[in-house]
Amino acid sequence: MRQLENYALGKWTHGFGEGQQLFNAVTGEALYTASSRGLNFADMMDYARTTGGKKLRKMTFQERGRMLKALALHLNEKKEDFYKISYLTGATRVDSWIDIEGGIGNLFAYASLRRQFPDLPYYVDGGMEKLSKGGSFVGHHIAVPKQGVAIHINAFNFPVWGMLEKIAVNLFAGVPAIVKPATITSFLTEAVVKEIVASKILPEGSLQLICGSANGILDHVINQDVVTFTGSASTGKMLKSHSRLVQESVPFNLEADSLNAMVLGLDVKPGSAEFDIFIKEAAKEITIKAGQKCTAVRRLIVPENLIEAVQEGISKRLATTTIGSPENKDVRMGSLAGETQRQEVREKVNQLSRSQKIVYGNLDEFNVVGADAKKGAFMPPILFLNDRPFEKTDCHNIEAFGPVSTIMPYKTTDDAIELSRMGLGSLVSSIATADDDIAREFVVGAANMHGRILVFNADCAKESTGHGSPMPMLVHGGPGRAGGGEEMGGKRGVMHYLQRTAIQGSPTTLTKITNQYQYGAKQTICDVHPFRKYFEELKIGETLVTEKHHVTLEDIENFADLSGDKFYAHMDEKSLEGTMFKGRVAHGYFILSRAAGLFVDPPKGPVLLNYGLDECRFIKPVYPGATIGVRFTCKEKVDQEKKSPEDIAKGIVKWLVDVYDETGDSVAIATILTMVKKKNQNA
Amino acid sequence: MRQLENYALGKWTHGFGEGQQLFNAVTGEALYTASSRGLNFADMMDYARTTGGKKLRKMTFQERGRMLKALALHLNEKKEDFYKISYLTGATRVDSWIDIEGGIGNLFAYASLRRQFPDLPYYVDGGMEKLSKGGSFVGHHIAVPKQGVAIHINAFNFPVWGMLEKIAVNLFAGVPAIVKPATITSFLTEAVVKEIVASKILPEGSLQLICGSANGILDHVINQDVVTFTGSASTGKMLKSHSRLVQESVPFNLEADSLNAMVLGLDVKPGSAEFDIFIKEAAKEITIKAGQKCTAVRRLIVPENLIEAVQEGISKRLATTTIGSPENKDVRMGSLAGETQRQEVREKVNQLSRSQKIVYGNLDEFNVVGADAKKGAFMPPILFLNDRPFEKTDCHNIEAFGPVSTIMPYKTTDDAIELSRMGLGSLVSSIATADDDIAREFVVGAANMHGRILVFNADCAKESTGHGSPMPMLVHGGPGRAGGGEEMGGKRGVMHYLQRTAIQGSPTTLTKITNQYQYGAKQTICDVHPFRKYFEELKIGETLVTEKHHVTLEDIENFADLSGDKFYAHMDEKSLEGTMFKGRVAHGYFILSRAAGLFVDPPKGPVLLNYGLDECRFIKPVYPGATIGVRFTCKEKVDQEKKSPEDIAKGIVKWLVDVYDETGDSVAIATILTMVKKKNQNA
Repeated sequence: MRQLENYALGKWTHGFGEGQQLFNAVTGEALYTASSRGLNFADMMDYARTTGGKKLRKMTFQERGRMLKALALHLNEKKEDFYKISYLTGATRVDSWIDIEGGIGNLFAYASLRRQFPDLPYYVDGGMEKLSKGGSFVGHHIAVPKQGVAIHINAFNFPVWGMLEKIAVNLFAGVPAIVKPATITSFLTEAVVKEIVASKILPEGSLQLICGSANGILDHVINQDVVTFTGSASTGKMLKSHSRLVQESVPFNLEADSLNAMVLGLDVKPGSAEFDIFIKEAAKEITIKAGQKCTAVRRLIVPENLIEAVQEGISKRLATTTIGSPENKDVRMGSLAGETQRQEVREKVNQLSRSQKIVYGNLDEFNVVGADAKKGAFMPPILFLNDRPFEKTDCHNIEAFGPVSTIMPYKTTDDAIELSRMGLGSLVSSIATADDDIAREFVVGAANMHGRILVFNADCAKESTGHGSPMPMLVHGGPGRAGGGEEMGGKRGVMHYLQRTAIQGSPTTLTKITNQYQYGAKQTICDVHPFRKYFEELKIGETLVTEKHHVTLEDIENFADLSGDKFYAHMDEKSLEGTMFKGRVAHGYFILSRAAGLFVDPPKGPVLLNYGLDECRFIKPVYPGATIGVRFTCKEKVDQEKKSPEDIAKGIVKWLVDVYDETGDSVAIATILTMVKKKNQNA
Repeated sequence: MRQLENYALGKWTHGFGEGQQLFNAVTGEALYTASSRGLNFADMMDYARTTGGKKLRKMTFQERGRMLKALALHLNEKKEDFYKISYLTGATRVDSWIDIEGGIGNLFAYASLRRQFPDLPYYVDGGMEKLSKGGSFVGHHIAVPKQGVAIHINAFNFPVWGMLEKIAVNLFAGVPAIVKPATITSFLTEAVVKEIVASKILPEGSLQLICGSANGILDHVINQDVVTFTGSASTGKMLKSHSRLVQESVPFNLEADSLNAMVLGLDVKPGSAEFDIFIKEAAKEITIKAGQKCTAVRRLIVPENLIEAVQEGISKRLATTTIGSPENKDVRMGSLAGETQRQEVREKVNQLSRSQKIVYGNLDEFNVVGADAKKGAFMPPILFLNDRPFEKTDCHNIEAFGPVSTIMPYKTTDDAIELSRMGLGSLVSSIATADDDIAREFVVGAANMHGRILVFNADCAKESTGHGSPMPMLVHGGPGRAGGGEEMGGKRGVMHYLQRTAIQGSPTTLTKITNQYQYGAKQTICDVHPFRKYFEELKIGETLVTEKHHVTLEDIENFADLSGDKFYAHMDEKSLEGTMFKGRVAHGYFILSRAAGLFVDPPKGPVLLNYGLDECRFIKPVYPGATIGVRFTCKEKVDQEKKSPEDIAKGIVKWLVDVYDETGDSVAIATILTMVKKKNQNA
């Protein structure tokens, strides 16, 4: 029997000894062994921090993003190989799609996130803070990659997604990873890592794999490392209190199972779109991945008068769910991941049976198609009914990690909120309602105990990604029982792998550090007009001081005619009593437009177009007789990639437009965005 | 002797027994006793969550901000009373200013932060995320107050600031607090809390005080609570691994002492402004608060050829630092907070003496003015020299929490970075340099081990707030040894007391929940022009669909003449080869201006002025012959307060301007900002 390999210190390595046996979840036959004995975790971590980490930390977010995109494209080409292996875990094609293509999708999503990050190895967080009256001393924040390693201890249910959703984030942040998948399904993770390593897309040292036990690895963490854990709350909490983590102040991101709820809104009537959505989604969430999802629905909170209708509706759907070999095309629900899992779930079902009754499903009687029900880890969907959920509280505390859920009645939306909160911290809850007032009441009331809340209605059901799917740009995690962690969420997730540091100094120094022009910093008067310069030639802080324009009443009249904007403050001298204006004031958009007239250099050149404004404030009214000029400063440059080889090579340049009057006061400040051609068109 | 009182369950309460004795740090005389025996911590926490928390959670951020402002104003009036008591802790007037007025300043700062928050009890975090192709299913984030209590376990050195910097944040977030100051200086905290309670500005239950031991309080935390600790790393780490914190996934924010460094840049010459700044700041940081600051400088990293000059410069300054009774006007350095502290610092000085030599100061010989050196907890400043800091590493690991610092030499900026990082996680480091390239190299290189880095130079020195001062709008905390926590930092600090929840649904539902118009949500066509409506009357989503305008070549010509903007893409048909334009394109600012002409209703009314734009994108080129119209939608409303009773009562209204052409495509999208009068001028 083949022993899975570990990827450590740049080599594929066998562990010592016979190792743990891994089984086909569908047939029960032994497939592989896995052993990590003999791996030196301390060396692996050091290797990651120095070899892989060093290379990743030198790359910019743009480079790391492109790396993830290349990796996603590569894995996408190999996906059919992964599907084949995934069947062995008991997963159907649909289950595997979540795992495999969901994971690859995460890589793509984090690759795209580069557009929100600077072309630097570190991030510039938020805006400048003024710390002094005169403005010579200011503050800002940067966030640099931690010089450690991300240790990911993952759950058995998503051997691909579980790895990719996490490494997408740490790699993007510039931090290497060591992945320890749950052993029983690690053969699929191994297959994916083999492809990743073979592709040579990641710098060596940025990813290592442990197939087998990682016992003892936490003894070697240092303060720059990050540990994440997905799995059962009990194991997670044991690891979280590891003395070394506490000693070194190592962040531990725990994402544990939770008793997620779906609520049927009080407004919903049987036969309505929202009723049907609820039934369909509930049945799907019970059976997909055989209920082995940390986000699967465990509690169905239903208006008391609809209990029967809901029970009937869901039961009908469950009855049509064919159970069996995931490779069989008729099968809608595969097996659990293994016999141990099945024993555990059966035990939890028995515990729950003490306080509530099963209304659908029978642990000992169910049909299995294309497989031997005794050899594979099959079980039927089980639906409970709890008629007094405020008193019989097992359903809020005992999680059967399989196709098991409990229906319970409620009277008022407040009760539904309270029941959802009795899970004491969940990854997700959802509500089906056509009434946005109920939606708001539920969401705001239940949010403190939830990491995610989804509102289903007829408008969004068709495009909804579903109760059970964490999305890369939304946070995934939850308070209390769910572990108190937070992963993904776009930028929010990336921040977990960065050290945020407040920086203080003069605006000029902070301009240098942030590579963004900070208000008040020294300006370099440019030698030639900045519109004559290519992207590469422009320097942050480079400033054009324009000619002046004398504002007249005629300007206001003409602008009002041309734009059609005849607002009283511009046009009607007599209407100004009680306003802040002392006379007819020039239009803000005129000031902005006239400023463009001053800073634009007309002939064709590197500047391709003006595509917007980021922020603009009209600070001081401009009256006829005023004279305005502009300081036009190169504020920030963002590199852009060609979408095709024929594309023009270009970048985005942000400019600070500071319009001032004859007293020297700024009258308007704006950041405008242009696209500027590169000199090197092969870049 | 008076026993300090605890404020618990809405009452001032004495503890049982004799309690712990508290001493005058300057004279050694016994002042008070403190006991918390008999307090029921579980009841106090429950009282906070239900009574205080319930009220705070119902308030909006605007209301909480105004509450903090009122509290700051009130305490400011009483500050002289606090100064008198502060002398008893050994603090000079300047030391006390940091504590008392620094703390009050924090309240003001968080009060002002309300302008960045919505007029809701919860926060809307970031922007909308598109989750589907058609746009009918989208995501967003809200952050609601945790329904728990903030337990603050504070250090002895800042009995006022230590409380106020933390409660400013949790109260603003809508979370009540229980404050447990270090017992030895808790008499000053008690005095401030007495004023706070008497003022009745905070809702009852939002603040309770424990003078004396809080042993056992962590046994009662639940998953909605937040615990913060400031003090020694050893105590902090012990508390952090409390099983109940782990069990309930309670966030524990640890802010521990650290071995903060100041670096003199390689470019700096003796006699230069930066050299003088370094000497002055180093001496100040050693002596202020007698070095009992978690941010005080413990390590002075100096180019090897300047060691002597720096040693001499600092010694000269230390020699002129008069030590003695803080009430004496000549005194620049008071006593430590007590005899125990003095013993500890002396012990650490002895430990450090084993590997490095004292070059200034003598533990057994120093002058004390206006006090008895034997009875008060006085000690002199001590300056060490470590000639081989890469080999003799005690200076990077042993913290003497008093006026003690070590000079050490370095050769290259890389070495300086490495030495600063050898503190294994610091709250702050600073560098004095006139060379921004060195500044950038140091900051980016050292950031991963620091919570804050300050760059001193001649430009900012005069206005600098100094190495040792955390600022409310910047994060305070640090990795590794410094505890791995993060407090303050404006919005960033507030997030620690909120539960962030991802929300998903249709744009219309999310508009309802966020109270901000989300792109794609249903629009209500308004009955009268929105410029005729007062602030209170406008509804989110209310939309004006304007008349149309036919764009002509004449428009472009006229706009070019009026603005002066004759950019080739607008003016020169022949220059467009190789550009993305198929013909002369209308100016973006013309489209924006013409849109205003379409949506503005001229006569005087509730709309007072247009004060800017938040974001504007020109999405599709507009050519002569196109016809444009605008959908003008009320996007967000932000209440404003009157600065004086005579002010016009008004609010800010943000509008989504969606300009579309005859094909229905959007050509420009912008968010514009107006000020709109209220109907009720007494609001």
